[in-house]
Parts: sequence; structure tokens; C-alpha cells
Amino acid sequence: MTAPDLDLTADVVTLTAQLVDIESVSRNEDAIATAIEAALDPVPDLEVVRDGNTVLARTDLGRADRVVVAGHIDTVPVNANLPSRLDGEHLHGLGSCDMKGGVAVGLLLAASVPAPNRDVTYLFYECEEIEAEHNGLGRLASTRPDLLAADFAILMEPSGAVVEAGCQGTMRVDVIVRGERAHSARSWMGVNAVHAAAPVLDLLLAYEPLRPVIDGLTYREGLNAVGIEGGVAGNVLPDECRVSVNYRFAPDRDVDEAMAHLREVFHGFELEVRDSAPGALPGLDRPAAAAFVESVGGEPRPKFGWTDVAQFSQVGVPAVNFGPGDPALAHTRAERVPLAHLRHCEDRMRAWLDGG
Amino acid sequence: MTAPDLDLTADVVTLTAQLVDIESVSRNEDAIATAIEAALDPVPDLEVVRDGNTVLARTDLGRADRVVVAGHIDTVPVNANLPSRLDGEHLHGLGSCDMKGGVAVGLLLAASVPAPNRDVTYLFYECEEIEAEHNGLGRLASTRPDLLAADFAILMEPSGAVVEAGCQGTMRVDVIVRGERAHSARSWMGVNAVHAAAPVLDLLLAYEPLRPVIDGLTYREGLNAVGIEGGVAGNVLPDECRVSVNYRFAPDRDVDEAMAHLREVFHGFELEVRDSAPGALPGLDRPAAAAFVESVGGEPRPKFGWTDVAQFSQVGVPAVNFGPGDPALAHTRAERVPLAHLRHCEDRMRAWLDGG
Repeated sequence: MTAPDLDLTADVVTLTAQLVDIESVSRNEDAIATAIEAALDPVPDLEVVRDGNTVLARTDLGRADRVVVAGHIDTVPVNANLPSRLDGEHLHGLGSCDMKGGVAVGLLLAASVPAPNRDVTYLFYECEEIEAEHNGLGRLASTRPDLLAADFAILMEPSGAVVEAGCQGTMRVDVIVRGERAHSARSWMGVNAVHAAAPVLDLLLAYEPLRPVIDGLTYREGLNAVGIEGGVAGNVLPDECRVSVNYRFAPDRDVDEAMAHLREVFHGFELEVRDSAPGALPGLDRPAAAAFVESVGGEPRPKFGWTDVAQFSQVGVPAVNFGPGDPALAHTRAERVPLAHLRHCEDRMRAWLDGG
Repeated sequence: MTAPDLDLTADVVTLTAQLVDIESVSRNEDAIATAIEAALDPVPDLEVVRDGNTVLARTDLGRADRVVVAGHIDTVPVNANLPSRLDGEHLHGLGSCDMKGGVAVGLLLAASVPAPNRDVTYLFYECEEIEAEHNGLGRLASTRPDLLAADFAILMEPSGAVVEAGCQGTMRVDVIVRGERAHSARSWMGVNAVHAAAPVLDLLLAYEPLRPVIDGLTYREGLNAVGIEGGVAGNVLPDECRVSVNYRFAPDRDVDEAMAHLREVFHGFELEVRDSAPGALPGLDRPAAAAFVESVGGEPRPKFGWTDVAQFSQVGVPAVNFGPGDPALAHTRAERVPLAHLRHCEDRMRAWLDGG
């Protein structure tokens, strides 16, 4: 396969558009990883490592501190929003916001800040948008923790170009409703599992999510069906209906507490846990985080979406989210990133790494 | 492929077991059709015609009347109920009831009644259990109506070994609920289509089916979800949820009236018709039907399930259901056929075709 070219001498808008135009839905990151690897390979004084479809580039200048600048290179499924499109103020397209804008900033810094004031590990990784088991960062954390060692990490997830601290946890469970098959012409002989799932959807429709305040930041929880399936054949009563539910919980609950809450909400129903990931408390009192906030400016906000700051948090590396794009547009068809965010993030990150 | 052998000199129980043990879920009837064709080919004075996986065998003795003896050779999906198993009173297994017992009776008559008192068209056809467009009888009705011409038809669907008259109609519609995608961590930005489907399931759960009386026979309608699906990815609010609904309606409603009823039940929801088939009125006042009832005995009952008597009815051939097996067990895991039904049906049909 010939990888498309990325131009690391281009401006951040052009490079973001190049990244968006390489389709990279989760599990299909080979082309974009190959392009990133090819673009970074010629940069002097960077050690480039490829692991699956995850690419790292590290300086090794003997600085007192090391920071990670990280972004995932996959996207959610295409939703009639490719290729990229530019208007005067925004770049539109799948991944423009979540999070190829952040990846573009990271790539430009890697190529154009030859002597950063901290050693930097740039990390461009696969499979953030799907089950945690496939996540490239998670894999490295268990197989090559040495590559991730750092004093602080910036995850360039869309955060409105201000620091978003902490992140909510996420848990996926299937609510399983069982019935008994019968011919649909003699339905009184069976039990329809799809009909029996009505109370599950009623519960979801009526659910009032919590909005806890932590370290002065207001989080917003959410409990949503992200999938439903049931059915055997067009003339058979279904004997199983499975509602896949995603619970996003504020970082004052751990995974066990989240599970206990779901057991309470779906009391009497069978639950099967699919995956879970703990949140991360804001941690803005830690010196590295406070110094970064001070340098890039702006008022820190809570992070609603789960991000891999939680993974860094789990391996003992303090981390915050800071990247271009409105996080509320992530995963929507209308995904886009303001050009001003791209330029602001590049400028602020460059000043932080290049300054005294 | 080598087709398994069928032994048309065996007794009806053995032959039914042989048919059950050839797995023939809809669209996978090649092996069973080939076995039937091979078993019928050597029978003298039968013209055997194969069309797709549908097999016909016709006498041409110049009788005053011609009758069709018909059965479908496909089954619903396997449900841990293969291979066949015999106890003292029943043969168990997928298709034993719906309707390989009836097929076995037809095959034995074809092989062992060399000079029937009426010309007979034996018909063994594919794809009755799935969308009407695949139905082998329906295909012949449009491409080779000459092969189906007859004065009367017996469809050997399970009917408790008594005549079941008429049949209910069937209609499949998708109820489509739309929403708007958003990241599940920021669900207030979207509209969850699965949650919005809660009222559809509530309606189905609360629905009270009608039980109309027609020609003294009490029919039982039914409205059932036979499938549900929705979901984009594990972290995205679904923008569509589709509930596939099967409405079984008594033969006093036609297809248009059935559709009007569904529009009323699901008022305000988007409906998409998948397929439909009209029912057939009992028609026991017609002479050929009355004569058959007289000959085989027993008290006629209403037919709840849709059967291809409706297709015969549409092409002007009066038809009734008469076959071994309890129709209430069709499409259940516990499907079985009483050995006494198999022997009774064979005996009564033989007397009808072989008598003066």
C-alpha cells in the first residue's frame, strides 16, 4: 500500500485537512499510521517507534523532565462527513474535532521544535473509540511501560482550546431480557423478549442523570442505550433482547460504585458487563498540572467524555486534556474545528515547549 | 454433493425422521430437494419437475379432477433440536411438526398410490418460512401457473390431523424511530432513538389482540415484535431504532384494512411495510372442500398461522390445511409430531385418493 503523504512543513490547518482525508475508522488505521511514521522518520533527533498502528517519536536530550504529548488517530464511523471541507472559520469533516486537529499540532511540534525545554514523547495511537481491549495506549502501558514513563502528559483531545481537567468514567453493560420462542401466529404460546424489554427503555427514557461538583467543576453524568438487538426470524417471537447501555459517571465514583448504581437502576434485570474504564479526578493541585495551566492560560473546565487521561492517571502520570475543537461536536455528523483553535493550541504548546 | 437417501418403502415415521435429519433451514434446501427428486424419479407414471429447490411430481391419468397435495420443505432456524429423536409416542426435532411429517405423507402417497381416483400434483417447495418473495409456490404461481392448475388443494401443514380451514393473513412492518447522534458522554447534545422507541414497545406490550368469529370458527390475531435493532458504536447515541413487527390478522380483514389498523395502533410513528400476505376465508361451503372434510372426518377448526392456502385461494384453487402435528408446537424448540397423527393422515389421505 502506498501511504498518502503528510506535509509537516505545512500550516496546522492544511495538515489537519490532510489527516482528516485519510479515513481511519477504528481498526482501519494502517494508512494513517504509515503516513505518520513516514513523515516523522526523517526528523533529526527523534527516535521513531511503531507498534501495531501506534507510532511514538521521542526526543532524548537529557532534560530534567519528560512530557507526553498524545493523541489517538482513529475516528468513529463515517457519517456522510468526508472528505474535509474548509470555510472561512472552520475545517469540517470526520475527525477534524476528535481529534486530528490535536494530532496535527503534535506532529508539527515534533517536526519543528528541535530543542524543547523538556524531553517529549509524542504518541499517536490507535483504537481509542472502541472497546478498551484494542486501545493502543492501553497496550503500550502493559507491554512497553518504559516508553510511556513521564512526569506529565497532555492529551490533545478536543477541549475548546482550554485545559479540561479529569474525565468521567465509562461502563458498558448489556441488559438482557429473555423470553420464549413461538410462532408469531400463535404468540400466546411464547413470551416475547422484545416486548418484555419495554420497561428497560422506559427506565432509560425517565432516567435523570446526576451533576456532581468536584474541585469546583460541575460534571454531567449520562445513561444511554447505545445499541439494541433481538430477533430470530420474521415469524418467530424473539427469545432474547439485548440492550447495550453506556453509563458515563463522574470521577467521584469508581468502577465498583458505578456498577452498584446500574444494579440499582436495572434492579431485577440480568446485566452483563462489556467493559469499563475509571474516570480521573481533576488533580489541578498537582504542580506539573498547575504549571501547564499557568503557561497556556484560560479557565480550566471539567471533562465530560472519558479520555485516556484516566489511563495516564492509572500508571501514575498526571495528565490533562488540552486540544482544539468543541468536545460537544465530537461524534456528530457536523463535526468541525475552528481554525483559531488549531492556531491557538499550536501557539500555546509551542511557547510551553520552546520557552525558557 | 451427495444427497442423503430417502426410503419411500419405509413407514411414515421412518421417512419423517429421514427428512428431519436433512437440515433444511430456509435458503438451504438444496440437499433435501435433491433427495426428494432422487427418490421420486424412479416411481413409474410420475412426471417429476424440479424448479430451483422446488420439486413437483404429477400423475396424468386423464381423471375428471386434479388435486394438489403440497408441503414446504424448509424450516425455521435450528434451535438445539436436531437430529430427530423418537420416543414411544412422538418423533421430536426441527421440522418434525412444521412440516416434514406432512411431506413424508405426500411422498409415500406419490410412491404407493399408482392409480389414484383423481389426478394428483404432489408439490414439495422451498422458502415458506421467510419473506414471501422467496416462496417456491409463489414463484411457480407466476412463472408456471399451468403446473398448479387444479380443482382443489390440500396443504399438509400441521393441523392436528383435522381439517383447518382458511388462514390468517400476515403483514410485516418496520416501525422506525429516529434520533440524532451524539457522543454518549454528552448525550444532551443528541436524541437517543432507542430511548424514543420505548412507547413503541409499551404499545406492543399493552396490545389486546382481537378474536373474531368467522363461519363459526374463532380466529386469534396477534401483534408482535419479531426483531429490533439500533446502534452505531459503543459510545454514540443511536440515530435510528427499527422495530420489526409482525401482524397476524383474521381473514375478515384484507391487507389494506390490516395496514389501516397498524397505522392507527402506531399513530405518529413512521412505518415501512416489509411484506404482507392476505388470509383466506374458511370456504367450507365449497363442494370440493365439503367432500374432503366428509372423507377424512373430524371437526374443522380455524387456522391461526398464515399458510399457502391463501396463495391457492388467490389463484382460484380452493384449499384447506390437513396435516400431522400440533400447530402450536411449530417454531418452538420442543417441536414434535405424534406418531398417531402421521399414521392417521397417511391412512385418511390414502383412503381418499385410493377409494371409489
